[in-house]
Amino acid sequence: MATTRFHDDVPDVNGLYADLAAADLQPLWVQPDLLSRRPNRLAPHIWRWKTLRDLAERSGDLVGIERGGDRRVLSLAHPDLGGLPFATHTLWGAVQFLGGGELAPAHRHTPAALRFVLEGSGVWTLVNGDPIHMAPGDLVLTPSWTWHEHHNPGPEPMIWFDGLDLPLVRNLDAIFFEPGGDDLSGYEPVHSSRSEMRYGSAGLLPVADEQVVVQDPASGRHSRLLAYRWPAADAALTRLIESTGRREASVRYADPASGRDIMPTLRAELHRVLAGHRTQTVRATGSGIWVVYRGSGATVIDGRRFRWTAGDMFVTPSWAAVDHEAGDDADLFLVSDRPALEALGLARTEEAQQQDVRADDA
Amino acid sequence: MATTRFHDDVPDVNGLYADLAAADLQPLWVQPDLLSRRPNRLAPHIWRWKTLRDLAERSGDLVGIERGGDRRVLSLAHPDLGGLPFATHTLWGAVQFLGGGELAPAHRHTPAALRFVLEGSGVWTLVNGDPIHMAPGDLVLTPSWTWHEHHNPGPEPMIWFDGLDLPLVRNLDAIFFEPGGDDLSGYEPVHSSRSEMRYGSAGLLPVADEQVVVQDPASGRHSRLLAYRWPAADAALTRLIESTGRREASVRYADPASGRDIMPTLRAELHRVLAGHRTQTVRATGSGIWVVYRGSGATVIDGRRFRWTAGDMFVTPSWAAVDHEAGDDADLFLVSDRPALEALGLARTEEAQQQDVRADDA
Amino acid sequence: MATTRFHDDVPDVNGLYADLAAADLQPLWVQPDLLSRRPNRLAPHIWRWKTLRDLAERSGDLVGIERGGDRRVLSLAHPDLGGLPFATHTLWGAVQFLGGGELAPAHRHTPAALRFVLEGSGVWTLVNGDPIHMAPGDLVLTPSWTWHEHHNPGPEPMIWFDGLDLPLVRNLDAIFFEPGGDDLSGYEPVHSSRSEMRYGSAGLLPVADEQVVVQDPASGRHSRLLAYRWPAADAALTRLIESTGRREASVRYADPASGRDIMPTLRAELHRVLAGHRTQTVRATGSGIWVVYRGSGATVIDGRRFRWTAGDMFVTPSWAAVDHEAGDDADLFLVSDRPALEALGLARTEEAQQQDVRADDA
Amino acid sequence: MATTRFHDDVPDVNGLYADLAAADLQPLWVQPDLLSRRPNRLAPHIWRWKTLRDLAERSGDLVGIERGGDRRVLSLAHPDLGGLPFATHTLWGAVQFLGGGELAPAHRHTPAALRFVLEGSGVWTLVNGDPIHMAPGDLVLTPSWTWHEHHNPGPEPMIWFDGLDLPLVRNLDAIFFEPGGDDLSGYEPVHSSRSEMRYGSAGLLPVADEQVVVQDPASGRHSRLLAYRWPAADAALTRLIESTGRREASVRYADPASGRDIMPTLRAELHRVLAGHRTQTVRATGSGIWVVYRGSGATVIDGRRFRWTAGDMFVTPSWAAVDHEAGDDADLFLVSDRPALEALGLARTEEAQQQDVRADDA
Repeated sequence: MATTRFHDDVPDVNGLYADLAAADLQPLWVQPDLLSRRPNRLAPHIWRWKTLRDLAERSGDLVGIERGGDRRVLSLAHPDLGGLPFATHTLWGAVQFLGGGELAPAHRHTPAALRFVLEGSGVWTLVNGDPIHMAPGDLVLTPSWTWHEHHNPGPEPMIWFDGLDLPLVRNLDAIFFEPGGDDLSGYEPVHSSRSEMRYGSAGLLPVADEQVVVQDPASGRHSRLLAYRWPAADAALTRLIESTGRREASVRYADPASGRDIMPTLRAELHRVLAGHRTQTVRATGSGIWVVYRGSGATVIDGRRFRWTAGDMFVTPSWAAVDHEAGDDADLFLVSDRPALEALGLARTEEAQQQDVRADDA
Repeated sequence: MATTRFHDDVPDVNGLYADLAAADLQPLWVQPDLLSRRPNRLAPHIWRWKTLRDLAERSGDLVGIERGGDRRVLSLAHPDLGGLPFATHTLWGAVQFLGGGELAPAHRHTPAALRFVLEGSGVWTLVNGDPIHMAPGDLVLTPSWTWHEHHNPGPEPMIWFDGLDLPLVRNLDAIFFEPGGDDLSGYEPVHSSRSEMRYGSAGLLPVADEQVVVQDPASGRHSRLLAYRWPAADAALTRLIESTGRREASVRYADPASGRDIMPTLRAELHRVLAGHRTQTVRATGSGIWVVYRGSGATVIDGRRFRWTAGDMFVTPSWAAVDHEAGDDADLFLVSDRPALEALGLARTEEAQQQDVRADDA
Repeated sequence: MATTRFHDDVPDVNGLYADLAAADLQPLWVQPDLLSRRPNRLAPHIWRWKTLRDLAERSGDLVGIERGGDRRVLSLAHPDLGGLPFATHTLWGAVQFLGGGELAPAHRHTPAALRFVLEGSGVWTLVNGDPIHMAPGDLVLTPSWTWHEHHNPGPEPMIWFDGLDLPLVRNLDAIFFEPGGDDLSGYEPVHSSRSEMRYGSAGLLPVADEQVVVQDPASGRHSRLLAYRWPAADAALTRLIESTGRREASVRYADPASGRDIMPTLRAELHRVLAGHRTQTVRATGSGIWVVYRGSGATVIDGRRFRWTAGDMFVTPSWAAVDHEAGDDADLFLVSDRPALEALGLARTEEAQQQDVRADDA
Repeated sequence: MATTRFHDDVPDVNGLYADLAAADLQPLWVQPDLLSRRPNRLAPHIWRWKTLRDLAERSGDLVGIERGGDRRVLSLAHPDLGGLPFATHTLWGAVQFLGGGELAPAHRHTPAALRFVLEGSGVWTLVNGDPIHMAPGDLVLTPSWTWHEHHNPGPEPMIWFDGLDLPLVRNLDAIFFEPGGDDLSGYEPVHSSRSEMRYGSAGLLPVADEQVVVQDPASGRHSRLLAYRWPAADAALTRLIESTGRREASVRYADPASGRDIMPTLRAELHRVLAGHRTQTVRATGSGIWVVYRGSGATVIDGRRFRWTAGDMFVTPSWAAVDHEAGDDADLFLVSDRPALEALGLARTEEAQQQDVRADDA
């Protein structure tokens, strides 16, 4: 807003300002620029896998999960956010480390969470009692207000990426939290989770369960499928590239029963860029956290180049110009707040010219 | 409507009736009961595979496809429909026979069609140029206004079930038809159709194609996936039965990108009933054609029992009480007009008590 | 479908045909052209007010409502529909005559009905107990499965147009009907119906009633407003013409709480054309019944000109080219099946060149 | 989250913490409680009309609009929000004062705004060139990204309440702003705005404009009606109370063409409570700003009683227990973020027992 800051020596004006402050009022004309020309609240930022992995492991060694709270989580704290443990204004990103034999007990909360597995295998995540096995590259959902807990029965630790809409839900003052009881949940290792047994076939929906959905409309707001396996995602990208003949492909993880995003607040995608290819530069409202799953390359964000290899995580701010260039064939997992922007009428997208690289943040 | 038929000897009334008829008007009070207490326009009916197959084969021998029109199709003509070649008021059902080396050339029409393969293998159906291989138990879609043609390059004939919404579209006077040109379409045998390459993964949707969809909203009215393979459907039912512990399971074929029915007018389902199990009796508005794919058993429809084995086809009328009992493990394919009823606010469903069998149509 | 009719002297073929007929099967290649190039099932047709009014009045004199059934209704019977009392394949149109002091008792049915008042005033239509006063130019709804009855407490007769989706619902075999009991409903003459008290303000929706709607989703399929008054419709058209500066304007009657059509199956519109103006020629799928409320002019339908004055009713078939030319300022009420076409993916519209008039049906 | 804060004297742990901080990471187990049991970020707060009016007038005297920026706005600055000029985490509330002969020039921004007029009459607000006259009790919308400006051609000042979703849009980092040019807009005083000419009739929607909407889907996200007049709102409440026989009634301002909220992010309602009546206590997620338009009474919020008279403004936090008791017949205008909560799957509502009053903030 074209707020010409207004200073005056007239004593009456100073008295007005004092009276306004005393009345919990602020004059618009002396406020900092609240109405910026375009989104500008964050810079891009990158966290390196070597550091993340090392610190996660040290945390595992030094801080027992029973003393360190329910979860051993290192959250990405964007330096532009004044000390809040948030990766962007709306998104929480973190690495979670669960040692061999450890258990992260049950709780539930309105912020929705997803897990994208980076290292290790064999943890069971129970979602409302449905045991979901986790292996590298798998995406596992723990939607809003579902009970969830993580069991690592094996000897090896596991590390995964946590993505949550916690900052967004907190901004809306809609956080509810409930801890589970002291009793441990029992579960049977199973070939496949119930959600996969029911919703794991493309275009084949169970008839009976749909009737349940009608009786409980709220259950339709997040994906009915709670696990998306790496081999399926890998194959889907391979087929897309074969089908289109292009050097890149992307899939959006979606509810098989509606095609909608996995959560009303979160979009998850997997992007593959083949070696040597550079993608079209695009600006879009909404922020994202990218997790490099495989390969190496660089992403140019508003003219700054960020080089990356597997395990690195970086943030793209709202309305930043973004393109990727792969060194080796690369797969990047993305979680973004885009569905919230779309639902609230704030989604904009624009293709941009290929960016000049002004700075190299390698 | 409680239309008391009214007869009068007063000459004025007879004169009135004559004048009404001359003016293309009808008095409601002498009309046949248009407003029945409940749906009542059709009886159930069954067609036997032995007959269907035999007559299809004889047609193949006697009537060359080049002389007999574009398609060698025997349509189910319900005896209650006054000679129209329709299985129900809204649904077309037929067996189509395509001999070895034969070609059913391209055309398109607003009625939507599906094919459920019963016998033989190796035909390629091209849908808007996308070649789709056909094998037993596969469901293949040729949606409204898509170009489609069938090629049988092998030596053996194929027989499949055709289901269309043609009677419904005709009732709405919305039929458009366009024949293809004389040139033959070339195609490359492929491992998988383009639609399967893009939409064949549960919950993994291509990002780029969705942008296309936004630009052409009409393309979102039918399923983006055009082929549903038997092994996937079979496995989905197996998993459902394992997951629920029940003796029956059903899947609805759906658009992977929206969860909606395959067509705005047609629902397709696959029902599995295990040997010895009898299903809950249900009434629902809307009519259906059932095709027995595997096994044997019987269906009770408004108190009449129809015994069936593989390949038999039968019709369930609107609001009929229906339940199935399997002799051997049985799989029944169903096509119905239910989405039309739902879209128009006319869907009703009601569970009923198990029916007494009043008549046995075996 | 390019069905070359196939005749053959080979005795085997004749035997095949006989066997097919015996098996309730029909060969596609000898069927009449089911797949027409474009919709073609109806011609346009017109009924004259002078005739309609005269015959309605004679019916009132000669046929007591207590002997002639629940309703004294003369239905438009399109000559192309083989004796059925239907105006088009999907629409019922009629004039209803209710004499002074007469009562049309309560019943309900799944076909939805609307009433557009042509002559007289003072009838109360009760819809689920809500008393709605009727006056010329008012549109009153009796949606699917609502109880409704008509009371004429005054001395003068009333005549209104009835529009129903009965042929469509019958084609879908979804008719349910229930007569009311013998007891007469009492009602209090009121300033305004309950539906108008709650939904009669543009853009101001009652908060509490919406919660009711959530609990009963079915109630949201038809308009919550049951009466649209002539003065409001007249004023809306006047404002539109003033606002746009054009010589024509049209409003669609809509549910104030959703903007959707008054019924899932029926659209109602009011079209005003100022003297001397001729409208753009348009083709659209779906059929309509036009009721001339005011003024005079002509409509050209597929090259045939139909001249009309107030009270005349005419039918426009699916995909017919249609334009109107007003002599005096004219208001035409339209009921059509267009929402059904849209819901089922069969809606097409196309602007056409102004038609030459080939025939004059004046 | 049950985060047991963890302190340790082990030097390694302190080194770990230092290394985490250096790497822009935070351990979850030492974070303040981000996951509260229930929403808790704000206390209720009230601003008094006497103060608001007095300070607005003094601002008008002391700070010329040409020197003080585009708008003379005093924003409600909730003391719990650390100096930000926001009424709640998601909502901006303010009083705007426009002196006689003053002009607030054109600009546009993605935050959506509404104006509820408190005092004075005669300002014209131009929204994308459509001139809208303003009078007490009117609600006028300036939706996201519409050009808007305010002209006060008369001699008297006007004061209105401004409600915006600015904090929410800022939290989503989706603010775009564009100042208008230097040229003044001309406009003709008109009887009614274009939006009212087209959308001002309950249930009567212009046919032609709807085609425009189809071509520009984005335009359907906010209300097509831009002004809701006090006499209509007043009459709607009177009719509701007459119709229901209750001592309270509420209307939601809605898009006449869809029934949806006026903005995707904002709900506006008008609540009437008759003298002596106390409403049901309700908790709901989402925050609101209440503006007392008429009458006097008190609102109990989480056990604290806030007495109010006309012009007072108060905030109800997310999940606070709220009920109102009217002294005189009272009308309260409410703007809330509820549509955002609903769109994102975070809406909860619960009826509560009548609250004990623990504190009296009179």
